[in-house]
Amino acid sequence: MSRFHAVYHVRCTAAEVASRAQALALDQSVEMPLAPITSGYVRDEIVARVEGCAEIAPGVHAVTLALATATTGGEIGQAMNMLFGNCSLQDDVTLVDVALPDDFLAGFAGPRFGLAGMRRIVGAASRAMTMTALKPQGLPPAELAALCETFARAGIDIVKDDHGIANQAYSPFAARVAACQAAMRRANAASGGRGVYAPSLSGGPRQLREQLRVVREEGVGMVLACPMLLGLACFAELVDELACPVLAHPALGGASRIAPPLLFGRLFRLLGADATIFPNYGGRFSYSRATCEALAHAGRAPWREFRACTPVPAGGMSVERVAEMIEVYGADVCLLIGGNLLAAGADLPARSRAFVDTVHRLSRVNEEIPR
Amino acid sequence: MSRFHAVYHVRCTAAEVASRAQALALDQSVEMPLAPITSGYVRDEIVARVEGCAEIAPGVHAVTLALATATTGGEIGQAMNMLFGNCSLQDDVTLVDVALPDDFLAGFAGPRFGLAGMRRIVGAASRAMTMTALKPQGLPPAELAALCETFARAGIDIVKDDHGIANQAYSPFAARVAACQAAMRRANAASGGRGVYAPSLSGGPRQLREQLRVVREEGVGMVLACPMLLGLACFAELVDELACPVLAHPALGGASRIAPPLLFGRLFRLLGADATIFPNYGGRFSYSRATCEALAHAGRAPWREFRACTPVPAGGMSVERVAEMIEVYGADVCLLIGGNLLAAGADLPARSRAFVDTVHRLSRVNEEIPR
Repeated sequence: MSRFHAVYHVRCTAAEVASRAQALALDQSVEMPLAPITSGYVRDEIVARVEGCAEIAPGVHAVTLALATATTGGEIGQAMNMLFGNCSLQDDVTLVDVALPDDFLAGFAGPRFGLAGMRRIVGAASRAMTMTALKPQGLPPAELAALCETFARAGIDIVKDDHGIANQAYSPFAARVAACQAAMRRANAASGGRGVYAPSLSGGPRQLREQLRVVREEGVGMVLACPMLLGLACFAELVDELACPVLAHPALGGASRIAPPLLFGRLFRLLGADATIFPNYGGRFSYSRATCEALAHAGRAPWREFRACTPVPAGGMSVERVAEMIEVYGADVCLLIGGNLLAAGADLPARSRAFVDTVHRLSRVNEEIPR
Repeated sequence: MSRFHAVYHVRCTAAEVASRAQALALDQSVEMPLAPITSGYVRDEIVARVEGCAEIAPGVHAVTLALATATTGGEIGQAMNMLFGNCSLQDDVTLVDVALPDDFLAGFAGPRFGLAGMRRIVGAASRAMTMTALKPQGLPPAELAALCETFARAGIDIVKDDHGIANQAYSPFAARVAACQAAMRRANAASGGRGVYAPSLSGGPRQLREQLRVVREEGVGMVLACPMLLGLACFAELVDELACPVLAHPALGGASRIAPPLLFGRLFRLLGADATIFPNYGGRFSYSRATCEALAHAGRAPWREFRACTPVPAGGMSVERVAEMIEVYGADVCLLIGGNLLAAGADLPARSRAFVDTVHRLSRVNEEIPR
């Protein structure tokens, strides 16, 4: 019987750690004391085991648990429940890493397009890709569409909805998607480019079904979704029903209770995210450079047959930081700059073009389709 | 145009707080700098406003933002996105409270049964209700059903699946529900009681649809679900499709980044949870008594036409603590004891009966149906 090997950081004293680790193992499996469990099967195969404890800093211990794969039923929501359901309610515990066994992974396909698939779609053979966001929310579809066309004409590969753009009265989903898709088609026709508009999907299963219908009818080329808002299992099903790449947004993902490389890198990739947007270091969020590099690595590193999930550093990035970002992440990346382009006001087209040119130049554009 | 008035606790210096609050307001609305926004409508009606900042402890400031209701599209997932989507990724921010405007609340029905409805179902006219959990996971349906029958014969009102019990190979959902429902029917027939079995629902929309079918076919009287694992909007839809009370479990709810009274009290109630299970103080979780009382209050206090959401303190509770819990929470409560009953081993029936008797005696059973 296979096991998940999950690593938690637990804040406690050295004297407490053995009992704290054992309590964690029970809480994340049978959720009851061991003594009254009479079933040998449950004791041997279901109860989580403490595999190791190591003090990694004063008062912080890395506790490794072996959680029975059987407890997940092969389903991602339940797997998250076993990994971090109850202990999310305990302030002293962080989920840092997990090694997932082959029999569990066999139930997942990972990204259906991945980095290479996204590159084919936008015609970026080897360079870094570019992405921006339509904002501010509150604008009507026609104005968002005009902005989409401006960005696309500047050569930006992917123009996504801001993740705050949903299905609001001032910009209903169906009307906005139709307008932005039309704008993107016009821009591509004029430039010969292959830009893609990615609307943001949101809501419960009923609203998502309706949005999927619009996505299909309008021939949308990519979508954005927030797995932690939708629910992980709901996100995985959504991916399953889409014929285009899915960009994952980290909203509601918490800052650090589940390590960002694990959640936004590995788990989102497992569920089929073709790209993972994350708050880059040095912006208005608090991630360190090491966290961001680990996250990008988790998305791209060889992992079974899973395609690479494109890292998308974002969150207060600027054209001036493109060189640094390409140096850090290389060309297997998609750079997302939103507010910094919009802040240019009347110079928006020029700054967008500068963003595109800088990315193309610095990440080598040998094999690009002509623009 | 109405607004959400949301209160955040922000860790920063007094010198930083004005700009930090303004950045938070932008991040949780338009997600871009203010300067390039030319639309008067967006500036006046969509951008979140800082309503107040007050230092409540050294280096901790209560920041009140007024978020435009229009940005939520009347949908709970998007409302959570606006409240805590991006700033969940910032370690210095906690969402503490929110006042929701009438036009937003009008889109929600709250609990369809609530405390009073649950009482009618189990025949507890005025006393506190009792709940326990089937565990450990790993047992086959027949053994869980036998345990269910034992608990029910002892007079426990609600026997729920442990929240870790999902759709595992060792206890598939349909077989387990059928077995446990049959056990509950047998126990009720023998005792004249009105016990209810509440299976745990989990997974994505497809699995949930299948589980809903089983729930209807078997005549299940209550269900358990984890809103943060399912996704809030998915949970709300699930409630909508059920003809029985729904018990909400806090798994994956985080310890403190969203104040527990707000998330597990008010928001789960808004979405239709008839009862909200939470880690009681003095157990194996870290909530304070004040937090727990505020949570219970948020679930039960008069709030528009919404029915009361039954508080269910749990998490390492024991029969010995019943008196204290009834003193703290009163009789408008459902007490959940799991592991402590199971720890009795061969004395499980007696300890279960002691649990029931203590609760009945201490919370006054004047109008009970005879058992």
